[in-house]
Amino acid sequence: MEMSRLPSPDKLVTGRLYIVGIGPGSPEMLTRRAEKVIAESDVVIGNDFYLDQISHLVQGKNVIRSRMGKEVDRAKECINLAKTTSVSMVSGGDPGVYGMASIVLEVLEHTGLAIPVEIVPGITAATAGAARLGSPLSGDFAVVSLSDLLTPREVIKARLSALFSVKMPVVLYNPKSRTRTEQLGEAIALALEYLPSDTPVGIVRNAYREDESVLYTTLGKVWEIEDLVDMHAVVFIGGEETRIWKRGEDVKGIITPRGYHRKYLY
Amino acid sequence: MEMSRLPSPDKLVTGRLYIVGIGPGSPEMLTRRAEKVIAESDVVIGNDFYLDQISHLVQGKNVIRSRMGKEVDRAKECINLAKTTSVSMVSGGDPGVYGMASIVLEVLEHTGLAIPVEIVPGITAATAGAARLGSPLSGDFAVVSLSDLLTPREVIKARLSALFSVKMPVVLYNPKSRTRTEQLGEAIALALEYLPSDTPVGIVRNAYREDESVLYTTLGKVWEIEDLVDMHAVVFIGGEETRIWKRGEDVKGIITPRGYHRKYLY
Repeated sequence: MEMSRLPSPDKLVTGRLYIVGIGPGSPEMLTRRAEKVIAESDVVIGNDFYLDQISHLVQGKNVIRSRMGKEVDRAKECINLAKTTSVSMVSGGDPGVYGMASIVLEVLEHTGLAIPVEIVPGITAATAGAARLGSPLSGDFAVVSLSDLLTPREVIKARLSALFSVKMPVVLYNPKSRTRTEQLGEAIALALEYLPSDTPVGIVRNAYREDESVLYTTLGKVWEIEDLVDMHAVVFIGGEETRIWKRGEDVKGIITPRGYHRKYLY
Repeated sequence: MEMSRLPSPDKLVTGRLYIVGIGPGSPEMLTRRAEKVIAESDVVIGNDFYLDQISHLVQGKNVIRSRMGKEVDRAKECINLAKTTSVSMVSGGDPGVYGMASIVLEVLEHTGLAIPVEIVPGITAATAGAARLGSPLSGDFAVVSLSDLLTPREVIKARLSALFSVKMPVVLYNPKSRTRTEQLGEAIALALEYLPSDTPVGIVRNAYREDESVLYTTLGKVWEIEDLVDMHAVVFIGGEETRIWKRGEDVKGIITPRGYHRKYLY
């Protein structure tokens, strides 16, 4: 039959796809692996904000700029291109944490194509921001996005309540946007149901980017600096044992002790 | 007075201290920043397992090898050295996630010394392992260590119950050691109180290291492969929406959809 002589969809695939985490924004914060797969790709696709952060790596390449909010279209486009060429889809931070990995894999699954795919992890905002604050996580922690674009608001609130009830440190991604301003206050109010008002809170804006700022406050006083929080910030809410780290009278950061004090003298 | 002519402790400090995350173990998984600060350090201190992973970066340096379990001594030693020289304390994965950052900062605080300190974030096992599994986290998630060396076992169980009750994906660090074998079964039993037995579970052993292995199972069947879990493994327990990612009949990995399906057709 004519049909049987047609190559199967898999045989048509000659390209490959990398879903690449580029970290918080500084060229120094990419891994060698991320640099290497971008260098080996003919096409680099991503949104403007992230492509600008790796402009030194994409000279001479076919660069496709997309816009925030167009993730599904971007996923389809990169898979279409990856049938016949090597493509890097870049994602801020880590592609598996509020990044492009899941939607690209979902769309790829729907196509049934056997495109070889590699996910390259990156430094996510939780650990980038933590490094700027001292050691606010140290042990068990959770990350929760306050964006209700893809997750119902009631689900987010239930998760936050559960986390605050067991007093684990929580990192809030997407704490605010221009149009979404209420959720941070709501999250703080939930935290105050379980944690004392002097629980440390750290805010890192533009970690490892221009205009980086790091602020310390407490749950009871977040409202004083809430205006400084925007979509470029990540908010760290301390757990039961989290405390301010000082040198003399100067606040140096936030520490959640790991628990060595329960076993050792130092 | 004689005393007032003595320099203050701060004046004696001429060194500096980096607490450096070296990622999961492959040289390709370090950031440029990590490589750079190690290159600029006269002394590199860490435990054998991690120093072996960066042997290409420490040629000609004063390398101080410590042992697992000697973290407090290691923290004191690196601070003592950093008074007068530049020191990199290396930590597997990210230093702020079950790493060396908190104990070093705690000991530094006790000394009162004004040693400049920089924490260099690294790829932690949650995102490294996730990259090998597909996209098991994607959105909100938590990491919990099953080691009760520094955290009481009851606290760990309460945290796990809270997390499973809101059906978030959970990454279990230190799921087992030679002498600590019961906690993984205990965690799985807690998960089964809230999640169906077909909830996907992923196990990544030696991510980005020699002898890497990736396994997929479900909550109801973990016992079949539990023997393959050891201290080099990280276990991913899916959340409410986590599912197996397939191509045809082949299991390719695990996906937790990010929620685009609630807004878009693809």
